[in-house]
Amino acid sequence: MDISHIEHIGIAVNSLEEAIPYYENVLGLTCYAVEEVADQKVKTAFFKVGDTKIELLESTDPEGPIGKFIEKKGQGIHHLAFAVSNVNEALSEVQEKGVAAIDKTGRKGAEGLNIGFLHPKATLGVLTELCSE
Amino acid sequence: MDISHIEHIGIAVNSLEEAIPYYENVLGLTCYAVEEVADQKVKTAFFKVGDTKIELLESTDPEGPIGKFIEKKGQGIHHLAFAVSNVNEALSEVQEKGVAAIDKTGRKGAEGLNIGFLHPKATLGVLTELCSE
Repeated sequence: MDISHIEHIGIAVNSLEEAIPYYENVLGLTCYAVEEVADQKVKTAFFKVGDTKIELLESTDPEGPIGKFIEKKGQGIHHLAFAVSNVNEALSEVQEKGVAAIDKTGRKGAEGLNIGFLHPKATLGVLTELCSE
Repeated sequence: MDISHIEHIGIAVNSLEEAIPYYENVLGLTCYAVEEVADQKVKTAFFKVGDTKIELLESTDPEGPIGKFIEKKGQGIHHLAFAVSNVNEALSEVQEKGVAAIDKTGRKGAEGLNIGFLHPKATLGVLTELCSE
């Protein structure tokens, strides 16, 4: 697989209204976009850090993936997303190697990227996303 | 604070012997260093990904920080480390802003960096490290 960099780090937070000021005023980062991803039941806020991004995730529905994550584990790092040149090829490659994927092929994610998630049981506890433009 | 990039992402694993082949053979990354950090009771393995690194952490003592983390939460992302120009100044700045720090001033970490951790209760659930060369 041709991972070029970490596309983003997804962090589950209780509230963007509380979290954005921490990332801006304490860490000195700048929120450049807030976007709702309806089918993931989240509102997201993005910060650029070097060649990667931090994606804060606030749940819009307790039954959505971030709502369930926060209920079980509390706020914290939710997933790691690697940039690849072609997400469909990368998903095929990992599945050929016996690694389970939640998404068999790519689908649309935040920022218009093609994304797919691997199964966390197959990735040593790290919920892993692959993305391509 | 002058964060330039994410220095590394620390990931707790049960075993480097099991984890390194996953990162190399499935994700296609290359392990460029394995280092024991005795005072943290861990063995570490490093992979470069764009301008950041993945640091796998295997506990060498169940009473160490990674041993306790894995016992409580299982394998997974443990901490996020931001590169700053001067870790002592950055630690002073966050404490002046009312954010608690585990390390009041920098200390030596893996790869010879000066490091300091903020308190996870003050960082919205993300164990946050600051590092400088």
